[in-house]
Amino acid sequence: MAEVKEIGSTKMFEGFNKRYSHMSASLSCEMKFHVYLPPAAASGKVPVIYYLSGLTCTDENFITKSCAQRMAAELGIALIAPDTSPRGHGVEGEADSYDFGVGAGFYVNATVDKWKNWRMYEYVTEELPSVLGSFDMLDLSKSSIMGHSMGGHGALTIGLKNAGKYKSISAFSPICNPMDCPWGLKALSGYLGDDKESWKEYDACELLKGYSGPKLPLLVDQGTADNFLVEQLKPENLQAACTAAEYPATIRMQEGYDHSYFFISTFIADHIKFHADALSK
Amino acid sequence: MAEVKEIGSTKMFEGFNKRYSHMSASLSCEMKFHVYLPPAAASGKVPVIYYLSGLTCTDENFITKSCAQRMAAELGIALIAPDTSPRGHGVEGEADSYDFGVGAGFYVNATVDKWKNWRMYEYVTEELPSVLGSFDMLDLSKSSIMGHSMGGHGALTIGLKNAGKYKSISAFSPICNPMDCPWGLKALSGYLGDDKESWKEYDACELLKGYSGPKLPLLVDQGTADNFLVEQLKPENLQAACTAAEYPATIRMQEGYDHSYFFISTFIADHIKFHADALSK
Repeated sequence: MAEVKEIGSTKMFEGFNKRYSHMSASLSCEMKFHVYLPPAAASGKVPVIYYLSGLTCTDENFITKSCAQRMAAELGIALIAPDTSPRGHGVEGEADSYDFGVGAGFYVNATVDKWKNWRMYEYVTEELPSVLGSFDMLDLSKSSIMGHSMGGHGALTIGLKNAGKYKSISAFSPICNPMDCPWGLKALSGYLGDDKESWKEYDACELLKGYSGPKLPLLVDQGTADNFLVEQLKPENLQAACTAAEYPATIRMQEGYDHSYFFISTFIADHIKFHADALSK
Repeated sequence: MAEVKEIGSTKMFEGFNKRYSHMSASLSCEMKFHVYLPPAAASGKVPVIYYLSGLTCTDENFITKSCAQRMAAELGIALIAPDTSPRGHGVEGEADSYDFGVGAGFYVNATVDKWKNWRMYEYVTEELPSVLGSFDMLDLSKSSIMGHSMGGHGALTIGLKNAGKYKSISAFSPICNPMDCPWGLKALSGYLGDDKESWKEYDACELLKGYSGPKLPLLVDQGTADNFLVEQLKPENLQAACTAAEYPATIRMQEGYDHSYFFISTFIADHIKFHADALSK
C-alpha cells in the first residue's frame, strides 16, 4: 500500500485533527482526508464514524465548521472525513459546474469511460478502510457512517448496501431520491450513462424497495427552511420508502433550519450520540 | 441614525445568526456586523458579549467557526461580532499587508491623517452600542467583551479603559503588549505616528501600570503551540503587569494548542460561562 503522510495536526478538545495525504489506487490521484482522534485514542482503540461531505466540499469543511469534535471527544469516537471526488485529473469540463465532476463525486463508481477515475464508492467502502487499517488506534470493526446533502445520499446508499460494515447510518439534508431530482439525474446519467437500472444501486429509495438486509439504526435531520428541500432532497420519498419497507427510520423535520453547517452544528451532537449508542452494542 | 439593514438570518441552536449592514459615521463607510440572538431573546431582554476578531478576519469568522452559539443559546446571551476595520476607502496601500490597513484596525482611533477613517476604538465603544440601542431584545447595561489575537488586544484595552461599560473581559491568544512586538509596533506607529506616549492608550500592559479602576473579572487562554506566542503575543508581560498592578487575572497556558479557531472552539464555552457569571451579578 502507498505511503500515508501526515500533513497537518491541530489540537482540539484534547484530541487532534490530523490531516493525511496518500496516493489512491482506486481514484488514481493523490487524496487528502482528515481524522479527528479523540483523547481516548491516546490510550486505546476507538470506534469510528465516517462523515461524507456535500457538493463543493473537501475534507476540510466538516472539520472546520461542524464542531462535531466536542461530542466525539467526550464519547471517545474518531471522525473520518474524506474528500468528495478525485482531483487533478484534468478531465475536460471537470470543474465547469459545482454539481458534477470535481467536488461532486456522488459516491458512485462511474462506468462512463470519461469519468473512469470517479470511483468514490470504492474509495469510501474499500480503499479508505484499508488505509485506515494501519492506524492502530482505530477499531474499524466498530464503524458508522453519516453525511450531508450529497454526502447524506452517500451515507444512506453505502450504509444500506454494506450493512455488515456499519453499525448505524445518519444524514443531514440528504439527497434522498437522486433518480427523482435534478442533481441526481445529472450525476447518475453523467457517471453511469443511460442504463437506468444501474442507477438504482445509488438511490436510497430504490435500495429500500424489497430491502431484506439488516435494518441498521437510521436517523435523518432535515431543515424546513432548506432552499433545496422541495426540488432536490425529498425526504418525503425516503419516508415513504422506509414505511413501505417497514424500515424503522427516524426522519425529523427541523423547523426553520437551512442547508448550512449552522444546521449541522446544531444537531451534530445528537448524531454523534446516536452513533455512539449503536457502536457500543 | 442611519438605517440598519438585516442582510442575513440563519437559525442555529434555536436562535439566529443575524447579519446587519449600516453606514458608519465613525468610519465613514458601510459596515457589517453579526448578532447571534439566543432563543431567550424571543421573549425578553438578554445580556451581550462583544467578540473582537483578529487580523484578516471579518464579522463572519467567529460566527462560522467558533461554535460559541451553543453555550450562548444555553445561557441566553447575545453575541456581537463586528468587522475588524473600515472597508472600501481605497486608501493607497490599505490592502498591501495582512497586518495593517484593511482587516487590521487594531481597535485604535488613528491620528495619522492618511488613516483618519480607522477609528475602530470609537466604533466598538460608542457607535456600535448606539446602533444596538435600537435592538429591543438586548440589555446593553449587561455587556462583556472578548476577542482573539488582535481582537484580544482590543478586548483587553477597551475593557480596561471602559470598565464601567463592561462586566468582564476575556481573550484568546491576545497581543498583550503591542509596544513590544512587531505587529503592535507597525500598527501603533502607522496609525498614531511617532509620539509613543499616545501608544500607551492602546497597550494593555501600559494601561495596567498604576491602574486604579474597577478590576473586572479577566480571563485569558493562550496555547503553548501558537506560532505567534514568543514574538507577538507575550502573555508573560501581561502576567507581570497584572501582578504588579495586583489585578487578579486568570491567565491560562493551554498545552499543545495553536492560534486557530480549533483552539477557540475548545475553550469558548468556558469563556461564555465566565462572562455569564459576571453578567448575572
